[in-house]
Amino acid sequence: MIERITILGTGLLGTSAGLALRAAGFGGTITGWNRGAEGAQTALSMGAVDVLATDPLQAARESQVVLLAVPIYATLDWMEQLSGVLGPEHLVTDVGSTKAQITAAAGRLYNTPERAAFLPGHPMAGKERGGAALGDANLFRGAVWLFTDDPGWQRSPASAALVKDWRELVGALGSRTIDMDAARHDALVGWVSHLPQFVATALSALLEEEVGDAPELKDVGGRALREMTRLGASPYSMWRDIAHTNTAAVEAALHALEQRLAHLRENLRTPELRDEFDQANRFRRE
Amino acid sequence: MIERITILGTGLLGTSAGLALRAAGFGGTITGWNRGAEGAQTALSMGAVDVLATDPLQAARESQVVLLAVPIYATLDWMEQLSGVLGPEHLVTDVGSTKAQITAAAGRLYNTPERAAFLPGHPMAGKERGGAALGDANLFRGAVWLFTDDPGWQRSPASAALVKDWRELVGALGSRTIDMDAARHDALVGWVSHLPQFVATALSALLEEEVGDAPELKDVGGRALREMTRLGASPYSMWRDIAHTNTAAVEAALHALEQRLAHLRENLRTPELRDEFDQANRFRRE
Repeated sequence: MIERITILGTGLLGTSAGLALRAAGFGGTITGWNRGAEGAQTALSMGAVDVLATDPLQAARESQVVLLAVPIYATLDWMEQLSGVLGPEHLVTDVGSTKAQITAAAGRLYNTPERAAFLPGHPMAGKERGGAALGDANLFRGAVWLFTDDPGWQRSPASAALVKDWRELVGALGSRTIDMDAARHDALVGWVSHLPQFVATALSALLEEEVGDAPELKDVGGRALREMTRLGASPYSMWRDIAHTNTAAVEAALHALEQRLAHLRENLRTPELRDEFDQANRFRRE
Repeated sequence: MIERITILGTGLLGTSAGLALRAAGFGGTITGWNRGAEGAQTALSMGAVDVLATDPLQAARESQVVLLAVPIYATLDWMEQLSGVLGPEHLVTDVGSTKAQITAAAGRLYNTPERAAFLPGHPMAGKERGGAALGDANLFRGAVWLFTDDPGWQRSPASAALVKDWRELVGALGSRTIDMDAARHDALVGWVSHLPQFVATALSALLEEEVGDAPELKDVGGRALREMTRLGASPYSMWRDIAHTNTAAVEAALHALEQRLAHLRENLRTPELRDEFDQANRFRRE
């Protein structure tokens, strides 16, 4: 039974995880740590964590489960550091948006009978703005929480039991857990998550340049504009690591969309336009 | 006082207008006509219109206000036909999404003291799917209803009074009315309405091709994907006319976005990516 959890990174996801664990009736201790003191204090005052750690490595050692809720490169850094101080009675898991590099590191540094377990995770939940203050106990309710576990990993009985318990806890937060191969995960989210984000960023940046100071903008822009640019508010700090760790997939997806837009542009007045709408309609069929 | 309105086209907008007029307490007669019998019957059974016309030109003659709620080329066709049978006691108005051609036709065929008035209108409201069955009395509530009226037009006192009354009725539907130059309207909606639509269409069509049959799609796709592709369901029948009547603006906007996406793609691993996110963040600043 999991009784001691440390959350490293009390941004939106870490704080929401703490709040959701409490709302789900988790009765153990939740220790928090955050690089910035303000985010840590906010998470503490919201009740997402019980106590703040001054030494995150010591807090990790004293916990059974460490949840890494930081950007991807920070996750990889913590994985290195934690692998040196944790053992077969520990589980480390994460919420990173790309999984190939993290899963490779998990195979290299964790997941033998003598070492701590690492369960690579990715909750398909978030908001376009980050920070502890937006933490939400219901963020994971109805969401899918992906794992890119490797069935070939040999874990100690104690850490394997923690993996099983953590999966059940995630279910108790209201998420549906699904397992997927890490490479397949990154290819798929390149299309359905990263491409939409970078399109929204490019569209928002372009519109800021072209009509950002138009006095009629607030009047003329409707729901379509708001939706298509909502992700324009997403922070560079999070997406930089995604761009760096899923570069080839995102490049290919962006290039394909550029070509698709050019095709549509060249066919605004030809019957080909109908084919594009028909194809798009199929994607949105009920 | 407006007492007799004919709605030509009982699709989503025409049916919603009828329902909204009733909800706002309009006590006169609403006559409906639709090219397809099923849409007409649906609007009638929903109470959006009181009676269906068999002869739309005669119904228009017997009304004070004719609301054209059909695609743009159909609007231009009706404008031709109606200009031959209506006079200075009539007002014709429309809901078309591009305004340059319609406003030019309004100056050519209407808006002299001897002729009917034509008030070019564009409610910034809609849904990604059309049809009478989706008609909604609250569709225009909180929306902006644009007019591209020309202050130089000389109207008969009777038709000028109808213009004033119709503007008030639109306000009673819950919309805020705003006046704008027709060329400026088309340039601006090219950026903030048409570009987002064609991007959503291209993105949806691409995703249908790349991942449309992926069994994990329903699990992995989140709110971002749903939002960025919602407009992929929009019908070709409506957007064809927009593509044909605002071609240059849409071409320029699509070309600019293609270049922006290429720039972003080439800078996924450089500090330029931060500038794109910063610029996008500015567009979404509160």
